[in-house]
Amino acid sequence: MDGTAPDRTAELALLLEVAGTPKPGNVDRHRDLEDLRFEHFIAGAVGARDGLELAANGAAVGPAFERAVEGMATQEGGNTQFGALLLLVPLVRAARHELSQPVVEGVLEGTTVADAAAFYRAFEHVDVFVADPPEGMAPLDVRRGADAIPALEERGLTLLDVMDRSVPGDDVAREWVTGFERSFDAAERLAAADGPILDRTAAAFLSLLAERPDTLVADRRGEAVAAEVTDRAAALVERDALETDRDAVESFADELVDRGINPGTTADLTAAGLFIALEREAVEL
Amino acid sequence: MDGTAPDRTAELALLLEVAGTPKPGNVDRHRDLEDLRFEHFIAGAVGARDGLELAANGAAVGPAFERAVEGMATQEGGNTQFGALLLLVPLVRAARHELSQPVVEGVLEGTTVADAAAFYRAFEHVDVFVADPPEGMAPLDVRRGADAIPALEERGLTLLDVMDRSVPGDDVAREWVTGFERSFDAAERLAAADGPILDRTAAAFLSLLAERPDTLVADRRGEAVAAEVTDRAAALVERDALETDRDAVESFADELVDRGINPGTTADLTAAGLFIALEREAVEL
Repeated sequence: MDGTAPDRTAELALLLEVAGTPKPGNVDRHRDLEDLRFEHFIAGAVGARDGLELAANGAAVGPAFERAVEGMATQEGGNTQFGALLLLVPLVRAARHELSQPVVEGVLEGTTVADAAAFYRAFEHVDVFVADPPEGMAPLDVRRGADAIPALEERGLTLLDVMDRSVPGDDVAREWVTGFERSFDAAERLAAADGPILDRTAAAFLSLLAERPDTLVADRRGEAVAAEVTDRAAALVERDALETDRDAVESFADELVDRGINPGTTADLTAAGLFIALEREAVEL
Repeated sequence: MDGTAPDRTAELALLLEVAGTPKPGNVDRHRDLEDLRFEHFIAGAVGARDGLELAANGAAVGPAFERAVEGMATQEGGNTQFGALLLLVPLVRAARHELSQPVVEGVLEGTTVADAAAFYRAFEHVDVFVADPPEGMAPLDVRRGADAIPALEERGLTLLDVMDRSVPGDDVAREWVTGFERSFDAAERLAAADGPILDRTAAAFLSLLAERPDTLVADRRGEAVAAEVTDRAAALVERDALETDRDAVESFADELVDRGINPGTTADLTAAGLFIALEREAVEL
């Protein structure tokens, strides 16, 4: 990816993420969900191009993200990569200068109330599954979309402030307040793994899933289910099942798809890790 | 794809083409070749972006094609979409105005000696399998790359002239001299087919394979093998095997991959058909 513009690399990361297999519970090269199929993710990645390009050209994070989501949503599968884009847009913005945790943190700290408003508008382009807001945050419920903007402006909240208030309970937002810790970790795991990039993607996904309960699963299905999934992923990682008993991982993947358990946050982190690893030329393909 | 720029649609067509499955003999969502894998096609499609964008912005066909090939080749699988791009670049150029056969023909007729020179330079970016040139054409052997440009200029051959001299024996070149007849046909078949777009893609591929022997297979493996593949594809189409006996098509796909028989020209035509169908909004996803 030598010399490739970061928006190109971000699009490639989205495409490789969805192709990586097995990714238990999610759409992958070998699995579709009922109404959300592989081709919707492909079209979502292509659709996000303009927004990612804005970020690569130095646009503010909020408007670039809103544009990316708007383009992503021009397919009939619904929400495919909202969370992944919320990670990729600031990473692309940072990569204009240097893709390091301090530079990413600088981008996040530079976000404004206008960025937060654009983030809220992004929810008007696509249905995103979101849990009920914490007490006192109802006026700022993202499901209100642009209607929440006056409350946002009144409180003077930047996009980083909004993310800060979404933790705990949303591990995409958690990346924003931890300097993208797990995303950068994931990039190192991708670089250290063996084999073709789609195998490395599967390994990184499983190790992230084993590490912390997926917050989308927790929101949708409850914390007990999210914990069960993590424990089972951890057991597979523990015995190096992708190498020694791949069928067990494939069965786990099928089972989660059948039960409708989709660890989407873990997929978002995997996409962010792929972007960082590709951009730093720590993996090749 | 309402309002989407044609270069975006072309990239999407490349991605959907490789994902479509089963596509007997070729890389698809479920099959890799030994050194040429799914992710190489994904990276090739993303890499081709700049060249496709040039075409969408009105650049001449030759330089846009050369740039697309150069970007496509920034992955380690080798040639992934050379032929597909040779079809897509003039189609994207035409789509600036109107995507119809007469407008495409106008684009082709407008090509110059400089476009032909750029086409020859494109062979320096990637190894493309090419048969020996016809008698008297050795000075214009594309494998000579830029070294052939003086001979090209001396004879005053445009890119359309070069394509004209490559027929018969190359069904990508044949599209150039028939007004993209089979590409437009393929788009109609995609529109008329049933189901999700990746199933339609598989159906269009098989019907194209059944129609005429694949010229890449003929060049690499001989005309008898190409004819055998076509006859068997025709028998599958005849009994509507994708609907009634999908296992038979999957087995045929595996067999061709095992035998190293890759109908790449048919894949190129499928990508062109996808672009036309998407651009005309004759298929949705």
